[in-house]
Amino acid sequence: MCVYFCVCVCVCVCVCVCVCVCACVCMCVRACACLCVLVCACVCLCVCVCVCLCVHVRACVCVCVCVCAPVSPAAQSPERLSCILPDEDGPTPTLFTQMDRLQHEGGELEWKESARWVKFEEKVEQGGERWSKPHVSTLSLHSLFELRTCLQTSSVVLGLEAHSLPQIVVEKQVQDGLIAPQLKEKITFVLLRKHRHHTKKSIHRSLADIGKPSPSNKASAHFNGFLALRRTHSLKNKFMKKLPRDAEASNVLIGEVDFLEKPFVAFVRLAQATTLGGLTEVPMPSRFLFVLLGPPGKAKSYSEIGRSIATLMVDDLFSSVAYKARGCEDLIAGIDEFLNEVTVLPPGEWDPKIRIEPPKKVPSAEMRSAGGVGLAAANDEEMPPSHKLGEELTFTGRFCGGLCLDVKRKLPWLLSDFYEGFHAQCISAVLFIYLGCVTNAITFGGLLGDATDNYQGVMESFLGTALAGTVFCLLGGQPLIILSSTGPILVFEKLLFEFCKNNDIDYLELRLWIGLHSCLQCLVLVSSDASYVIKYMTRFTEEGFSSLISFIFIFDAIKKMVGAFQNYPINTYFTPDSITAYKCECRGPGQDIKLILNKGKLIQSMDWSQLSKKDCLKYGGALVGKSCNYIADLALMSFILFFGTYTMTISLKKFKSSQYFPTKFRTFIADFSIIISILVFCGLDFLVSLDTPKLHVPSEIKPTRPDRSWVVLPFGKSPWWIYLASFVPALLVTILIFMDQQITAVIINRKENKLKKGCGYHLDLFWVGLLMAACSFLGLPWYVAATVISIAHIDSLKMESESSAPGEQPQFLGVREQRLTGILVFVLTGVSIFLAPILQYIPMPVLYGVFLYMGVSSLSGIQFWERIKLFLMPAKHQPDFVFLRHVPLRRVYLFTLVQITCLVVLWTLKSTVAAIIFPVMILGLMVVRKILDLVFSQRDLAWLDDILPEKDKKKKEDEKREKKKTKGRDCDDDEEVCRHASPKHNNTLTLFDTILIGLCFAIDY
Amino acid sequence: MCVYFCVCVCVCVCVCVCVCVCACVCMCVRACACLCVLVCACVCLCVCVCVCLCVHVRACVCVCVCVCAPVSPAAQSPERLSCILPDEDGPTPTLFTQMDRLQHEGGELEWKESARWVKFEEKVEQGGERWSKPHVSTLSLHSLFELRTCLQTSSVVLGLEAHSLPQIVVEKQVQDGLIAPQLKEKITFVLLRKHRHHTKKSIHRSLADIGKPSPSNKASAHFNGFLALRRTHSLKNKFMKKLPRDAEASNVLIGEVDFLEKPFVAFVRLAQATTLGGLTEVPMPSRFLFVLLGPPGKAKSYSEIGRSIATLMVDDLFSSVAYKARGCEDLIAGIDEFLNEVTVLPPGEWDPKIRIEPPKKVPSAEMRSAGGVGLAAANDEEMPPSHKLGEELTFTGRFCGGLCLDVKRKLPWLLSDFYEGFHAQCISAVLFIYLGCVTNAITFGGLLGDATDNYQGVMESFLGTALAGTVFCLLGGQPLIILSSTGPILVFEKLLFEFCKNNDIDYLELRLWIGLHSCLQCLVLVSSDASYVIKYMTRFTEEGFSSLISFIFIFDAIKKMVGAFQNYPINTYFTPDSITAYKCECRGPGQDIKLILNKGKLIQSMDWSQLSKKDCLKYGGALVGKSCNYIADLALMSFILFFGTYTMTISLKKFKSSQYFPTKFRTFIADFSIIISILVFCGLDFLVSLDTPKLHVPSEIKPTRPDRSWVVLPFGKSPWWIYLASFVPALLVTILIFMDQQITAVIINRKENKLKKGCGYHLDLFWVGLLMAACSFLGLPWYVAATVISIAHIDSLKMESESSAPGEQPQFLGVREQRLTGILVFVLTGVSIFLAPILQYIPMPVLYGVFLYMGVSSLSGIQFWERIKLFLMPAKHQPDFVFLRHVPLRRVYLFTLVQITCLVVLWTLKSTVAAIIFPVMILGLMVVRKILDLVFSQRDLAWLDDILPEKDKKKKEDEKREKKKTKGRDCDDDEEVCRHASPKHNNTLTLFDTILIGLCFAIDY
Repeated sequence: MCVYFCVCVCVCVCVCVCVCVCACVCMCVRACACLCVLVCACVCLCVCVCVCLCVHVRACVCVCVCVCAPVSPAAQSPERLSCILPDEDGPTPTLFTQMDRLQHEGGELEWKESARWVKFEEKVEQGGERWSKPHVSTLSLHSLFELRTCLQTSSVVLGLEAHSLPQIVVEKQVQDGLIAPQLKEKITFVLLRKHRHHTKKSIHRSLADIGKPSPSNKASAHFNGFLALRRTHSLKNKFMKKLPRDAEASNVLIGEVDFLEKPFVAFVRLAQATTLGGLTEVPMPSRFLFVLLGPPGKAKSYSEIGRSIATLMVDDLFSSVAYKARGCEDLIAGIDEFLNEVTVLPPGEWDPKIRIEPPKKVPSAEMRSAGGVGLAAANDEEMPPSHKLGEELTFTGRFCGGLCLDVKRKLPWLLSDFYEGFHAQCISAVLFIYLGCVTNAITFGGLLGDATDNYQGVMESFLGTALAGTVFCLLGGQPLIILSSTGPILVFEKLLFEFCKNNDIDYLELRLWIGLHSCLQCLVLVSSDASYVIKYMTRFTEEGFSSLISFIFIFDAIKKMVGAFQNYPINTYFTPDSITAYKCECRGPGQDIKLILNKGKLIQSMDWSQLSKKDCLKYGGALVGKSCNYIADLALMSFILFFGTYTMTISLKKFKSSQYFPTKFRTFIADFSIIISILVFCGLDFLVSLDTPKLHVPSEIKPTRPDRSWVVLPFGKSPWWIYLASFVPALLVTILIFMDQQITAVIINRKENKLKKGCGYHLDLFWVGLLMAACSFLGLPWYVAATVISIAHIDSLKMESESSAPGEQPQFLGVREQRLTGILVFVLTGVSIFLAPILQYIPMPVLYGVFLYMGVSSLSGIQFWERIKLFLMPAKHQPDFVFLRHVPLRRVYLFTLVQITCLVVLWTLKSTVAAIIFPVMILGLMVVRKILDLVFSQRDLAWLDDILPEKDKKKKEDEKREKKKTKGRDCDDDEEVCRHASPKHNNTLTLFDTILIGLCFAIDY
Repeated sequence: MCVYFCVCVCVCVCVCVCVCVCACVCMCVRACACLCVLVCACVCLCVCVCVCLCVHVRACVCVCVCVCAPVSPAAQSPERLSCILPDEDGPTPTLFTQMDRLQHEGGELEWKESARWVKFEEKVEQGGERWSKPHVSTLSLHSLFELRTCLQTSSVVLGLEAHSLPQIVVEKQVQDGLIAPQLKEKITFVLLRKHRHHTKKSIHRSLADIGKPSPSNKASAHFNGFLALRRTHSLKNKFMKKLPRDAEASNVLIGEVDFLEKPFVAFVRLAQATTLGGLTEVPMPSRFLFVLLGPPGKAKSYSEIGRSIATLMVDDLFSSVAYKARGCEDLIAGIDEFLNEVTVLPPGEWDPKIRIEPPKKVPSAEMRSAGGVGLAAANDEEMPPSHKLGEELTFTGRFCGGLCLDVKRKLPWLLSDFYEGFHAQCISAVLFIYLGCVTNAITFGGLLGDATDNYQGVMESFLGTALAGTVFCLLGGQPLIILSSTGPILVFEKLLFEFCKNNDIDYLELRLWIGLHSCLQCLVLVSSDASYVIKYMTRFTEEGFSSLISFIFIFDAIKKMVGAFQNYPINTYFTPDSITAYKCECRGPGQDIKLILNKGKLIQSMDWSQLSKKDCLKYGGALVGKSCNYIADLALMSFILFFGTYTMTISLKKFKSSQYFPTKFRTFIADFSIIISILVFCGLDFLVSLDTPKLHVPSEIKPTRPDRSWVVLPFGKSPWWIYLASFVPALLVTILIFMDQQITAVIINRKENKLKKGCGYHLDLFWVGLLMAACSFLGLPWYVAATVISIAHIDSLKMESESSAPGEQPQFLGVREQRLTGILVFVLTGVSIFLAPILQYIPMPVLYGVFLYMGVSSLSGIQFWERIKLFLMPAKHQPDFVFLRHVPLRRVYLFTLVQITCLVVLWTLKSTVAAIIFPVMILGLMVVRKILDLVFSQRDLAWLDDILPEKDKKKKEDEKREKKKTKGRDCDDDEEVCRHASPKHNNTLTLFDTILIGLCFAIDY
C-alpha cells in the first residue's frame, strides 16, 4: 500500500510542478489555450490526491487515533488502562474460560472441549480422556502478537443482545465486508454444531438451543431459573465449587473449515451474561465469545491463538478491561499492558514443553495495576519487615492501665465469642485439640508422677487441665491459647521435689507457698503493665528458650529409654541350648530356720522357693541363680514401642504431603497421627501382653498418692521462715511463667494469623496468676500457655477462601476466634477422668516416644535449627533462605555459633547445682543478645534476629546514610532507558506505541 | 507529525476542490481573471504538498526499505539467520558472560561483578556476599525491546583489534556524532576503572592493564602465556572446571554516571579473543563487550537491559549470530529470532520474583535452529517411540549363525576391552560391585544352604560365583552383565530339593543330570538362533516376571522373620517379680536309673540337671518348668536387626538426594548403603552379643556339608531312568535360564545406555549353558544374569560430560564398556573365601533385611508397580505419567487389573504342587499378552506395553487411517494464521516486520 501511496504522491508532485511551470510559461504566451491544459492537470491532480486519500484514510485515522491522543506517550498504556478502568468501579466477576475445538466425530462436525481456565490452564488429555493437572499457561510471543493482529482486523462486538447470536456475529462481518456473503450460511451452520464437554457423561448441546423455550430464556424468569438449574448442577458437579457464585463464562471456539480461504475472527461481549444453551461445561452464563475459524492446515497455530485469548480472559487486569472496553482499541491496550508485564523465559534455558506447576503466590491485580511488580523489584527489599508488636504492649504508666485496656478491648466481642463457635469446623477442632490435650495430660501426668513420686499424677493432671483450661478460655484475654503443663514447669517441679526430698521439707506445702507468692508477683506484673518488656525479647531469646526446652524433651525421652535397658537388663550370654542352667531360686538366710514372725503373724513352714522376688528380698532371702539379674524381653519390647511410636508419628505426619488418597483423608491421618500411633502401639503391647511398664492411673477419683488429700493446707508442716523464703523460688517460677506465657502469646497473636479481636497479654497473665494460686491450694499442677498445642488450635480453626481456582492455593482469611472450642475441649478433658480404667493399658515407652516426637517436631519450626543444619551443607546446596541472600555466610555461622554456645552453657548449668535458677538463665540470653549489638551490624541482625526497640531508630538512620552513599542506585522507578539512547531527540515513543504504529501500518498495507 | 500531515492533506484537498470548481465556473465566465486565482491556488497546493512530502519523506523511505526488501516476509528472520549461519561452519566457542555494575566504593568508582552466566544465571547476592543458585534468567519483554532499540541506535563495532580498546570505542561514537566530544575523556576514565570480582579474594584489575607489558600481551607469546596462566588458575578456581577449554568471555558493563544526559551504548566484538586485564573473574579471553552508561536514576532499568544482553550472549543461537554477524542488522535479526522462540508466562499466573530452577533438559541448538521446538509440539507425540531391539536379534536361519555374528562383532573389541578398563572410575566400580557380589553370594549362599540342607552353602556360593563370573566376563558376549544366583534359580533348587527329599532321590546327582540336559538344550537354542524370540517378550511379560520374583523375595524375607518368632517363642506372661518361679529342669526318665549306656561307653552317675537342653532330650530326659518353651530376647532382637537393616538401607539410599554434605560423600553413602547397614547391624549384634542365628560358614575350604565331595559323579546313586527323566525338569530350567538371562540382557543392552560395542545374546547363552554343566559337576550353584546387580554395574561405569554449566545436568556420554572390572570383581570374590572366619559374625536376620530391601527396591523401577499405586491416588493427584496423558484411566486400570490377576494366579500356582512348572507359567504370561491384543487397542498397548512385532505394521496403518480421519489437524507447520485474517490482501508482513517498521518510525520521529 505504501508503495502505491508513494508513487501517487510522486506523480502528484510531478504533475503539480509541470502545471506550475506550464502556467507560468502560458501566462506569458497564450492564456486560453493554456487554461485547458491547466484544468486537465488540476483534475488529474485532484483525482490522484483523492485516490491516495481514499486508500490512505484508514491508516491515517488509525495513526491519528493511536498516536495523537495521549499527551505523554511514555505512559500511554497505563494511562489508557486507568481511563478504561475507573477507580470507583466495583470488581468484575471472575471469568471461567473454556476452549472448544471443532472436530469430526463419526462423520459429524462438533465442538469438543480442549482446555479450560479458572485461573490456571487445565488441558483435556485427548488420549487419556482426563484433565491435566492445572498448570501455568506457557504462551508463545508469536501467538500473542497474532492474536493482537486478529483482534484488530476482526469485528469486535461489545454489548450484544444474546438472541440468535451466531447470526448477528456473521451478519456483522458480512456487513463490514470482512467475509463474503455466500459464506454466511456455512459459518452459521458450523457455529451451531453441538458441543461435547469433557465430563463423565458427555453433554451435547449447541448454540441453536438458545432459541428454544427454556426457563433460562425468558428475561423475567431468567435469573431464578438459572439459580435453580445451577443449584441442582452444583450438587453433581464438584467443579462448580471451585468457582465463585457470580462467576461468568467466556467461550473460545477454534476450528478449521475447508470453505474459508481466510480466517473468520469474532470477539463478542454480551450485554448481559446469558446461559447459551450448553456452550459451557458448567451451567454458567456466558459473557464473552471468541470465535476463530480458518482454512485447514493451521490447527496448531489457531489453537495457540485460542490459548492466548483464553489466558488473557482469565487475567485479572485484562478481564476488567474486557468488561469495560468501549472498542477494539481498549482491548489492544489491555493486551499491550499484559505484554508489558509478562515474564520471558529464554529459549536456550527452558523447554516450552514443560508444564509449570502453579506458584504458591502470584501478584494480585491491585499490586500489578499499581505497577509495583517487576523483575527488578526482587532486589529491592534490602531490609526485612520490622518486628512489630501490637499496640496492646504499649506502656500506659497507670495502675492496671494495660489490664483495663485489655478488658475494654475484649468485652465487646464477648457475645460473638460464643455464637461464632457454632460452625462445623469447630467440631473437628474440638475433637483434635481434645485428643491433643488428653495426650498431653496423660504424658505430663505420667512424667509429673515420675518426677514428684506421684504427688501429682495423671489424676491431678486431668483435673488441673480441666479446671485451668475452662477458666482461662472463659475469661482469658486470648481464648485461642491452650493451657497445659509445659516442659519448663516440669523441670522446675522435678528440681523442687528433689530439693524437698533431700532437705526433708514438705513438698506440697512449700509448693503452695511458692504458688501464692508467684500469684502475687504476677498480679504486680499485671498491674504495672510489665508485659511491655516482651518487646525486648527477640528471636534470639525465643529460639534459645524453645530449643533448650526441645532438647530437654528429647534428652529426657532418650534417657528414660536407656533407663529401661538398665531396669530390665538383658542376659547377653544366654544361649537357648543351656536353658536348663538358668534359674533363680530364693534361698532363706539359713536352711534350718523355717518359722518367721511377720508383723505379729506366724508363718508356718515357709517354703522359700515359693516366694516371689519381692517377698524373698523382703523376708531377707537371697536370690541365687544365673537368671536373677536379667529380665527377658522387656527392654527390647520397650525399645520397639518407643521407637515405633516415634517413627510412626513422624511417618503419618509426612503422609499429609503424599499423593495417596484424597486430601481430606490425608489431613485426617496427619492431624490424628499421634493418637493413631498411640493406639497402634498400645494395641501391639496388648497383643504381645508382655509386662511392660504401664501408666499408673487410679481407677477412682482420688489423689494419685493415697497419703495426700485434695486440699493442701498452708500451715503446719514447715517452719515459719519457709513461708517467706519461698518468695525466692516463686520469683523463678514467675519469670518462667511470665516468659513461657508471653512468648506463646506473641506467637499466637502474630500478624500472620490475621486475628481481628485483638489480644490481652495483661489479662492472660492475670488469670494465669490466679489459677496458679488455685492449683497450688488443690495440689494440682501449674498451667501455662503451651506453644505447640496452641498453634495446633489456631491451625485447626483457620478459615480459607472456599472457591479457589484449580491449582491455586486457597487464600487464608483468618482464624475463627471464639471461646467455645477451648471451653468444650477442657470440659471434655474433665469428663475423661472416667477413662482412667482404659488409660492403664498405655505403656510408658509409647509416651516416651510421643515425647521424643514433640521435642523433635518443636525444633523443626525454629530458624536457629535451620541455621545449625547449614553447617552440614555445602554452600551450593543450601536452601534459598532470605537471610542467606542478605547476610554473609560467615556472619550467619558466627551468629549460630554464639547461639550454640549459649545453649551449651545453659545445658551445662542446668546439669549442675545451679539448675534451680534455670528461669533466670533465660534472662541471661537477653543480655547476650544486647552484647551482640556490638558485634553484628544492625542490618545483619535485622535479618537473623529482630532489632531491639531503641535500635530501631538508629537502624533507619543507618539505612538512610547507606542509601545516600550508594547514590540511589536502587531507586525504584521503572521508566525507559533508551528514550535517551536515541541520538536525535529526547521525546520518543514507548516501545508499545511503536509496536502499535507498526501494526497499524501492517493492517493497511 | 501525523497531525500536521493530515491537516496538510485536508487543506490540499479543499484547495484542489475549490480550484476545480473555480476553474469550471471561470471557463464559462472570464478566462484571464480566473487564471490568476488558479495559479495562486496551484502554487499553494504545490507548497503544501512539498512541505508534506519533506516531512514525510523519511518515514516513507524507511517504510519502503523495511517493507519492500524481503521477498517472502513470513520467513524473513529464519532466512536471515540461515544466511548469517552457514551450515558448513564449525561450532562457536562456549561463551561465559559476566555482568559488572559501576559502584562507588569508599569514594572511588569501581566495577563490581553483579552476575554471571555460563548457561544459567548466577547472581551475586550483594548482602549475602555469595553466589545465588543457578537459575533460569527471567527477563521482561520490556527490557528486551529496550535492548533492541539500544543496539539499533548505538555503535556496534565488530572485529575490533584489542589495543587501547576503550579509546577506540569512545572515539567511534564521537565520530558518529553519538556523543559530544567533551565527554570522551570522562567516559574513557569510567571505563578504565578497576574491576572487583566476587571471589574469595577480590581481584582488582582494569582495562588499563592492557597496555602494560605482560606475557599475555605480546601476540607471539600470547597463547602459551595464557595457557600457563590458565593452568595455575584452574587449580585455584574450581569454577574453571565448569567451562570447556575453548570457552571465551563476554563482558557486560552497566553503570550510572552523572555527566551523561543520554545513555552511552556500545557493543564490541574483538577480532581475536584477548585477556583484557582482569576484566573477567576467570582468566579467560574476552571476545565481546557490551557497555551501557547512562544518566543516574535508572539503575534498575539499565541492569535489566544488561541481564537481557547477557542472557542473549549465552543463548546458543544468538551467540553464533553474534560471532558471525556482519552488522547491527544481523544482531537485531538474532534478537528477533530469540523473541520468536521465548516462552511467555502470563503476569497473573506467575510471580516474576520466583527464581526458576534449571530444567532437567533444554532443547538443543540444533533442534531449535531446525525449528522443531514449539509450545504446540507437546501435543504431537501421539505414539511412543517404538520398542526396538538391535539387529543382533535377527533370525539368520543358519546353524550357529547368530553365535558366529556375535563372535565376529565382539572380536575386534577384545583388546580395547582390557585397556579401556584402566581408569580411576573402574576402581570404585570394582569395589562397589565386589561388595554387592559378596553380599549376594553370602545371602544367596545362606538361603541356598537353608533350602538344600547345606548341600549348597556359602562356600559353594563363593566358589561358584568366582568361577562362573570370571569365565563369563572373560569370554561372554556382554561382559557388563554380572552373573549371580537369582531368585528363580533359588526357587527351583528349593522345589527340587524338597522333591528329592520326599521321593528319596539323590539330590546332587539328579541336579547334575538336569544341568547336563539343560546345557545341551541351551546349546541347541544357541545354534538355532532361538534368542530372537525375545522380540515377543513385551513389558507385560517382563514386569510380570520381575514383580513375581520381587514378591517372592519380600514374602520369603517376612516369612523367615515370622519364623524367628516361632523358633524363639516369647514368654508373654512373664512378670519380673515372679522370676523365681521360672526354671527349666532336666529330669531323667526315672529318678533311680543312674547308669546309661551311650554308644558302648558307660556314663557313671549322670546328673540330669547338669545336661544341656539338647543332651537332655537326646538321652531321653524330660524338660520340666515354666520357662522351657520360651526363649528370651532372641525373637525381638532378630526383629530389630531385620527391620533396622531394611530401614537403614532405605534411608541411606534416600540420603543421596538430601542437601547435606558434598555430593561425592552422599553418592558414596548411597552406593555403599547395603554394606554400611550390614556392618552397623552386625556391630550392634556383636555388642549385644545375644545368640542370634548366625550365617553358617565353614572355616576352611571344604564343602559346606561334610558328607559331599567337590566333584559330583554322574552315575551310581540313582536308577537309570532318572538320567533320561531329568530331561523334563531340565526343560524347565532351560526356559528359566533362557528368560532370566535374556530379559536382563535386553535391559542392559537397551538404547538408553548408549552402548557402542554391541551385544551378544547367543554368545551369552552359550557360556551360561556351558557354565551350568561345569557347576553341576562341581556341585556349585547355577549362575545366570542378575538384573539388579548388572544394572548397578552399568550405573557405576557411566561416563558423563565433565564440564557442564552450573545448574545444568551433566550429559550422559555412554558406559565404559570393558571386561576388566567384571573379571577383577570375581577374582576378588574367589579370594574372599579366606574371609570365612569373619563372615560367621553376620546374623541371619540382617541378611533377611537385605533381602526385603532387594525385593522392595526392585519393585520400585517397574511401571506395573507405579500403575498399582495409581489405584490409591485420586485422579487429580496422580503423577503426570506420559501414558496417563494418552490412555484413558479406566483402560489403565483394566490393564493393571489383568496384570494383578495374572500375578495372583501365578502366586497361587506357585504355592501348590504345580510349583515345579513355575518357569513354564511365565510363558503363560506371553499368551495372556497375546490375548490382550483383542481387548485393547494397539494405541493403548503402545503406551502401556509394547507392540508385538507382527502388530507393528498394523499399528502404523491404524495411525495413518486416524490421521486421515482427523484431516491433518495435528499438522506440523508453524506459520501465521492472521496473514489470511487481514481482509484486503493475502501478502501481509510478519510480526517482527511490523515491529521493525514501528521501531524505524520511533527512531526517526
